[in-house]
Amino acid sequence: MHTSIATVSLSGSLTEKLAAAARAGFGGVEIFENDLLASPLTPEEIRARCADLGLSIDLYQPLRDVEAVRDDVFARNLRRARHKFALMRRLGADTVLVCSSVSPDAVDDDSLAIRQLAQLADAAQEFGIKVAYEALAWGRHVNTYDHAWRIVEAAGHPALGVCLDSFHILSRGSAPEDLAGIADIPGEKIFFLQLADAPLLAMDVLQWSRHYRCFPGQGGFDLVGLLRRVLAAGYRGPLSLEVFNDVFRQADAGSTAVDAHRSLLLLGEAAGPGVLPPAVVPTGIAFAELLTPDAEPVTALLTALGFTRAARHRGKPVDLWQRGEARILVNTAATARRDGTRLAAIGLESPDPAGAARRAEALLAPVLPRRRGPEDVPLDAVAAPDGTELFFCATDSASTVATASASATAFAPAGTDSASGTASTAASATATASGTAPASASAVPELPDWRADFAELPDTPATSATRIDHLALTQPWHHFDEATLFHRGVLGLTAQESVDLADPYGLLRSRAVADADGSVRIALSVGAAPSDDTVHAQHIALATDDVVAAARRFREAGGRLLPVPANYYDDLAARYEFADGELETYRELGILYDRDAHGAFRHWYTETVGRVFFELVQRDPGYQGYGAVNAPVRLAVQHARR
Amino acid sequence: MHTSIATVSLSGSLTEKLAAAARAGFGGVEIFENDLLASPLTPEEIRARCADLGLSIDLYQPLRDVEAVRDDVFARNLRRARHKFALMRRLGADTVLVCSSVSPDAVDDDSLAIRQLAQLADAAQEFGIKVAYEALAWGRHVNTYDHAWRIVEAAGHPALGVCLDSFHILSRGSAPEDLAGIADIPGEKIFFLQLADAPLLAMDVLQWSRHYRCFPGQGGFDLVGLLRRVLAAGYRGPLSLEVFNDVFRQADAGSTAVDAHRSLLLLGEAAGPGVLPPAVVPTGIAFAELLTPDAEPVTALLTALGFTRAARHRGKPVDLWQRGEARILVNTAATARRDGTRLAAIGLESPDPAGAARRAEALLAPVLPRRRGPEDVPLDAVAAPDGTELFFCATDSASTVATASASATAFAPAGTDSASGTASTAASATATASGTAPASASAVPELPDWRADFAELPDTPATSATRIDHLALTQPWHHFDEATLFHRGVLGLTAQESVDLADPYGLLRSRAVADADGSVRIALSVGAAPSDDTVHAQHIALATDDVVAAARRFREAGGRLLPVPANYYDDLAARYEFADGELETYRELGILYDRDAHGAFRHWYTETVGRVFFELVQRDPGYQGYGAVNAPVRLAVQHARR
Repeated sequence: MHTSIATVSLSGSLTEKLAAAARAGFGGVEIFENDLLASPLTPEEIRARCADLGLSIDLYQPLRDVEAVRDDVFARNLRRARHKFALMRRLGADTVLVCSSVSPDAVDDDSLAIRQLAQLADAAQEFGIKVAYEALAWGRHVNTYDHAWRIVEAAGHPALGVCLDSFHILSRGSAPEDLAGIADIPGEKIFFLQLADAPLLAMDVLQWSRHYRCFPGQGGFDLVGLLRRVLAAGYRGPLSLEVFNDVFRQADAGSTAVDAHRSLLLLGEAAGPGVLPPAVVPTGIAFAELLTPDAEPVTALLTALGFTRAARHRGKPVDLWQRGEARILVNTAATARRDGTRLAAIGLESPDPAGAARRAEALLAPVLPRRRGPEDVPLDAVAAPDGTELFFCATDSASTVATASASATAFAPAGTDSASGTASTAASATATASGTAPASASAVPELPDWRADFAELPDTPATSATRIDHLALTQPWHHFDEATLFHRGVLGLTAQESVDLADPYGLLRSRAVADADGSVRIALSVGAAPSDDTVHAQHIALATDDVVAAARRFREAGGRLLPVPANYYDDLAARYEFADGELETYRELGILYDRDAHGAFRHWYTETVGRVFFELVQRDPGYQGYGAVNAPVRLAVQHARR
Repeated sequence: MHTSIATVSLSGSLTEKLAAAARAGFGGVEIFENDLLASPLTPEEIRARCADLGLSIDLYQPLRDVEAVRDDVFARNLRRARHKFALMRRLGADTVLVCSSVSPDAVDDDSLAIRQLAQLADAAQEFGIKVAYEALAWGRHVNTYDHAWRIVEAAGHPALGVCLDSFHILSRGSAPEDLAGIADIPGEKIFFLQLADAPLLAMDVLQWSRHYRCFPGQGGFDLVGLLRRVLAAGYRGPLSLEVFNDVFRQADAGSTAVDAHRSLLLLGEAAGPGVLPPAVVPTGIAFAELLTPDAEPVTALLTALGFTRAARHRGKPVDLWQRGEARILVNTAATARRDGTRLAAIGLESPDPAGAARRAEALLAPVLPRRRGPEDVPLDAVAAPDGTELFFCATDSASTVATASASATAFAPAGTDSASGTASTAASATATASGTAPASASAVPELPDWRADFAELPDTPATSATRIDHLALTQPWHHFDEATLFHRGVLGLTAQESVDLADPYGLLRSRAVADADGSVRIALSVGAAPSDDTVHAQHIALATDDVVAAARRFREAGGRLLPVPANYYDDLAARYEFADGELETYRELGILYDRDAHGAFRHWYTETVGRVFFELVQRDPGYQGYGAVNAPVRLAVQHARR
């Protein structure tokens, strides 16, 4: 599967783009004309640079509005084309893209288009170049792929074929009858395939195409269906991304290229030609790890929430706090004070950690170095697009890990590198804390000193089962769609609908990814622009079966709930009818309320420590949301209290 | 003319929004429900805060999907409405907005809608409240203003009227026959008028409405025509802005409110009821002022460009550099080193400076303090939205100001405040440099010492006339549309089409404002997101009648032209046929080329000093552009050389 990307899809200078494409594993590029014009490199130098990087130059597109024009205009176009064909020889590119004309001078005369395209193909052939003719969705007279093919077929020229572009085809509809014509095109006459997805927007198609295209799997087009048809027609050329997107133009080329190549690998897997290690869907959240320069505010908060410190690492400043099935690691190593307290790592319970890691690596997730002692459990970890470390932990069942004493049994010896070994140490601590024996667990000695230390600790109150309901992670501005695709494609989670949340200082977009039964839920959000500092808040939501009792206990333990304005409760009174005293209880404690067709959702928030706060949620069975309707009130109060 | 603004149009907490609206001169607000719910203030406290600020609460809109539903659903809606009416009494708001239902439960039955809306009006009347019924453009069964009016008319209830919203009306079309029905509505039954403009986008109307609305004059709707019709129908209520816009949600509420109120004042003037001092269109650019922490690189550049230092201020570190009719002030006072060299002020030649300043002040432009000595010419200056200082300079004709010796005659004594007096000193220097006697010029004594000092300076070479062709100013991300409206509305300039420019690190949007004959041209541009550091480049384009000779002289004088890649010239060769040697000359020197139907445009750039560079342009008569087609090459080279 030869993959390629148009340089216009990446930001930076031409050489920055080429380097980023090669690093991400692409086999080729389409060079966009403006990138070449603005480069100080000669075409020969560009050719050599690409060869050095292992990139073929799969396409060049310097021509516009070529065909179906008056003969004197066509003569000028042909003159220009010869200049460009000579340039392509220097560049070593053998396929030129010709888009259907959008010029008001173009004539609605297929026979004229056929004759002139054949002349163009004659000229190209002299230079050893093939012409790929593509119907733009807004082409003046030719705007469907089958019309372009009829013209190419009629021209009957060996150097003339079609280029299929998923945007131009699917932006006009994707009903089976719209796509059936692809089967009629002989594979060898499909000279090129350009792939782009796009969100399903009802807007002017030209603006949609120029600003909102995205990588496969990040929009709403059925690219899998399209690619299957094109492959079935016999196409064996590059799968090439041509994505015009305002965000990608600004984002770092390196990470955009990785996101881009990952999307193609996933598309290739779904449509057939690509093979990847199978997805291993996580079955639960083993832990969330907070990195903090000062454990005091965090541990005060955890204590008030009913967590107890169940274990402390022998050689590292990492504590395991536990309540029911919810486990929080508090790590005071290796963080700068200015970063404050943040959620740095997530342990995911996995039925096949090594398999999960193999898939992540195949999908270009950075694999984190295993800095562990010789007797540590061999755990695998990768970095998510926002830098959060994901640890794949072997666990037979979450129910076996509920006691603090079990957790304390299995701390492995400290890693050899104290500065950077915290995360994997923490992960191995928890994975083994689950009480399950991983493959190499027999190598882990029992550490009675540690167990003895913690056995004396009082158990957490058993009145209320607690587990992590969801984690909420804010994403860097450029990486929201990438993060969604990553969690879907790498982890096998399912993305829910995207919702807008009104923050007082800007609109947030939020989208949850989850497994089928809600054991793993991660809510991803992003601000409307990079300047929005609200995107830095993260939170850990704990599930409880009695949100009121949890709130009272938290308050009695000295915790402070986020205060909720009285006006909010006046509105609840207008919207719903409550049992006697119910609304008054919510008002007294600061509990928020939502309801959908399946049930109710009651939740409250703690104050924020660094970039992190906690939420307690009581979720009726069937309620699938996250209380988004209450987010504007929560965000406004959080801003006011800063 | 009572003006009002919906709190949703501004960012921040409710009290921040109220303060910003009051400061900008609004008479009232529409309170958006989420802002009230999230506020810690009681309704009574909000009422008092508004009264303190001189703001009426003109509208509240807590109800959705009220009418045309099953009676049991309507009973619940009525119960909710009564809660909200009680709240409105506490708030002191007497008009409630009811939008046509979008609920799938709504029945397509006008008689049901009529009966239920009358019941709602009955309930409202008990609380002294009027119901304004508005057709949403995406209402399920009622989505046109005339349909809403038929329902209101049939209900015949004194507490029920319509709310007209320009977005919902004009997003469906604005042909005269579409709007004729407004005349049929008695003015006293139009209970409210909400105004919003929007760019003409062919997109889903709900998304368009929620994210892309803008202030009047910043989009493509004919709001003047609509407002005239509504006023002709007899409406005398508030003109209220309801603008949902992703950018405004993030921007500073204070400046957004000023932008908003300015847009309403201009709309009021255009449609009749508002009166403003008339616009005074500037007739030329008297000077551009550079603020720099180190004059050396700037003066070296100016010298190479053929400028000579024509005058130096007696008491301030401000030099006047002149070549032909182009005047640059170089000011080394009062700037921080980290700001580098920047374009800080513009002198505009004005047939009526005082009148121009009166209009600017009436349109909320900050008037800059006149820090000048007792004998200075009384010059008026205001700040543009990006902070650039605009000085209105009296000039009879640009041709009288062309000599350096004339410029040197009139420097007034230094102002009393040396820290902040530079700009107005500079302006008075230049305005009087024009050789014209302003109203109070008789008070300005001749300063023979100064004239004598500069009379010895050699004149600038007369081989090539030079004047400022245009100034290019980059705008802060949040202020692009505001800046365009400011230059149109305050200065009376005309805006040209907006164009996209591909920078290697993001898309720039650029729009020029100019007077009718091109004597004043200012190109405004903005990045695609606030993180884009390319938005900080500004430039001064000098017109020449021989761009080649100018380039050679500049090079001979030690100046360095921005180098242009060879690939650019290969492309020019493909696109155009040039006279013998013409292209080689351009290639040798680094001259860029564009052509439109009216003529050619040749231009070259200097290196950048601080945030400023110069451009030399030779414009064929009739060519109206700015060489935008070449901007990607220029931007790429500038990035590469940083």
